[in-house]
Amino acid sequence: MEKLRNGYLFPEIGMRQQAHMEKYPDASIISLGIGDTTEPIPRIITSPMAQHSHALSTREGYRGYGAEQGNKTLRKAISETIYKDMGIKDTEVFVSDGAQCDISRIQLLLGSDVTIAVQDPTFPAYVDSGIIMGQTGDCISATGKYAGIEYMKCGPENLFFPDLTSCTFPTTDVIFFCSPNNPTGHAASRQQLQQLVEIARRNGSLIVYDSAYAAYISDDSPRSIYEIPGAKQVAIEISSFSKLAGFTGVRLGWTVVPHELTYSSGFPVHKDFDRIICTCFNGASSIAQVGGLACLSEQGRRAIEEVIAVYKDNAATLAEAFAGLGLEVYGGTNSPYVWVHFPGRRSWDVFNEILEKTHVITVPGCGFGPGGEGFIRVGAFSTKERIREACCRLRRLFG
Amino acid sequence: MEKLRNGYLFPEIGMRQQAHMEKYPDASIISLGIGDTTEPIPRIITSPMAQHSHALSTREGYRGYGAEQGNKTLRKAISETIYKDMGIKDTEVFVSDGAQCDISRIQLLLGSDVTIAVQDPTFPAYVDSGIIMGQTGDCISATGKYAGIEYMKCGPENLFFPDLTSCTFPTTDVIFFCSPNNPTGHAASRQQLQQLVEIARRNGSLIVYDSAYAAYISDDSPRSIYEIPGAKQVAIEISSFSKLAGFTGVRLGWTVVPHELTYSSGFPVHKDFDRIICTCFNGASSIAQVGGLACLSEQGRRAIEEVIAVYKDNAATLAEAFAGLGLEVYGGTNSPYVWVHFPGRRSWDVFNEILEKTHVITVPGCGFGPGGEGFIRVGAFSTKERIREACCRLRRLFG
Repeated sequence: MEKLRNGYLFPEIGMRQQAHMEKYPDASIISLGIGDTTEPIPRIITSPMAQHSHALSTREGYRGYGAEQGNKTLRKAISETIYKDMGIKDTEVFVSDGAQCDISRIQLLLGSDVTIAVQDPTFPAYVDSGIIMGQTGDCISATGKYAGIEYMKCGPENLFFPDLTSCTFPTTDVIFFCSPNNPTGHAASRQQLQQLVEIARRNGSLIVYDSAYAAYISDDSPRSIYEIPGAKQVAIEISSFSKLAGFTGVRLGWTVVPHELTYSSGFPVHKDFDRIICTCFNGASSIAQVGGLACLSEQGRRAIEEVIAVYKDNAATLAEAFAGLGLEVYGGTNSPYVWVHFPGRRSWDVFNEILEKTHVITVPGCGFGPGGEGFIRVGAFSTKERIREACCRLRRLFG
Repeated sequence: MEKLRNGYLFPEIGMRQQAHMEKYPDASIISLGIGDTTEPIPRIITSPMAQHSHALSTREGYRGYGAEQGNKTLRKAISETIYKDMGIKDTEVFVSDGAQCDISRIQLLLGSDVTIAVQDPTFPAYVDSGIIMGQTGDCISATGKYAGIEYMKCGPENLFFPDLTSCTFPTTDVIFFCSPNNPTGHAASRQQLQQLVEIARRNGSLIVYDSAYAAYISDDSPRSIYEIPGAKQVAIEISSFSKLAGFTGVRLGWTVVPHELTYSSGFPVHKDFDRIICTCFNGASSIAQVGGLACLSEQGRRAIEEVIAVYKDNAATLAEAFAGLGLEVYGGTNSPYVWVHFPGRRSWDVFNEILEKTHVITVPGCGFGPGGEGFIRVGAFSTKERIREACCRLRRLFG
């Protein structure tokens, strides 16, 4: 734990926001920081949750513990809708209370003796949970990197996909890979993911693939690692209803562990993950699971697509605004995040300047790894009106 | 993980139940096995959950991520009702999705280099999560114990409280202590807990105190370790709404980490646990938290006390029935569990005999540690009618 005693990114932003609000009590702050959904959940999803809550007060409707792995009907619905035509069985889907929680449970499965690789920049929980598990050495202050982690640089110079041939994969056990990536917004192409799967297969590495933002993909990039032939033998996939259906507060996600995935000994990883789930987790809230099932009905899917369309429009508006200021802008088309380059400047300086002069909260790119220095992440989770207002303020500052 | 590849207790019971149902498809099975609540949740608690679910569909009522540590109002309500007069602050309460999940997060905090002690028998998750974290050696087949764990025997010979002076505490970092204990049903007295706290203070050990069944205490045994002076400097307490309010499926619990609790370096444990919660957890479901708050209102507390009274009556009925058969019976007064001794017999044999001849599911005591061999645990979570029916069948078998 001592290695990790630097602050976690989002609470740090929260503290700076708090200080700003005390300094400018009358300012109208617009938060484009933490990726927190803002649109209401469609009624077709909340009504069954309310009904289930009421039913818990009746003798017929009361249910206690469900299966640790999730309700059979929900596991089946996930396998049949999200993984349609990919041959993922319901028994390979483990329902969880969110992807971040499952990252830790996967780390418990992996233990402290593995080496890990991550995109740089990426979602901080892979590295942080690895540090907590004891997989890393100390932080090297000159680089901001932790010893023992392979940081796969993803920047404009390689179009945000790492040069896998230059990485030290033969000695890396686990590759965390997030696509569309948070924060860069880059969705890996089919060809790129084929390359990733091929390298993992060759080296006997495990891919932990995070598809939490798959619903934001607009082009024909794969929405799951299992669209790639051979992935079932090398990849676990984690995902979530948070950004898919606004379930950030409701808490629901899932992890796929294919039966075909085995250790080098031939022992199935599925069996061990099942044991972790039974020992360290007691299932997601039954109310949230009812909501998840409603999301995956035909009407439910149409309703959540409409909500996602709002955020995607916002992302396009933000990307246009920053591009119009002559800045290099990435992401925003396959992702709710826009990744803006401020070459030669430090992320926290840009964050502070924007906050001070426009009362808009962003996220400093360096919080996602040393490769994010010089960038800021701007999130599309807000109303259309507030996004427009934020763009106006930003134009005044940088225009 | 390899060390843990023996089956987990409750899925094993589930499989035997399944096999029994296939053998006797017409049998009316009564499950007094897994400690799963069966009474509906009072409407005063489910109504706010339903309302909150509905509100998530409105612009005013929608909420995304809450604080990872839990909603301020719920943390405050827990500190002011459950820990009334114990001086626990709201900031010391971390809301979770259940005690079992928090045991694993505490294990992440502790890491692999600590030595642990557990009551024998006790709830298996302490040992199992310790094995997953790498805190133990292999299982010694002659004793059924894992190397590196101190098993504190709790049996009729010591009235279910371990002889702390004979334990190897000076070398034990963490003592898991569950009171009222699952499965024995024994609630430690004030004097016993004073002794425990005193020994932990003397040796610099951490107590992880599990009070998940505190609401079942009928006598003046402490309901929290913080009733003992000095406990705040040595103890974390985990607890849950599962058995308190029938939230086994809703999922809600909490952990108290006092500010005064420090490592030997003086660094506060609270700060590290907060970091674990922010990194490995994203807060309990907002709907469940609304329900938890309703449980702690004056009306809510009265309503859940009525439900607990049903289970306590059931426990008394079961205890009487077994005692009437001339068996030694423990627990059942401060706990929903009755712990029945079958000297000279193996727990699984008794489990099998009862299942085969009465279609009643119990739990073999050996599943809670080698000290539980020769006992079975019988749970009070059922309707009054089914408990009576189970007692009739048991009388026919053993009478």
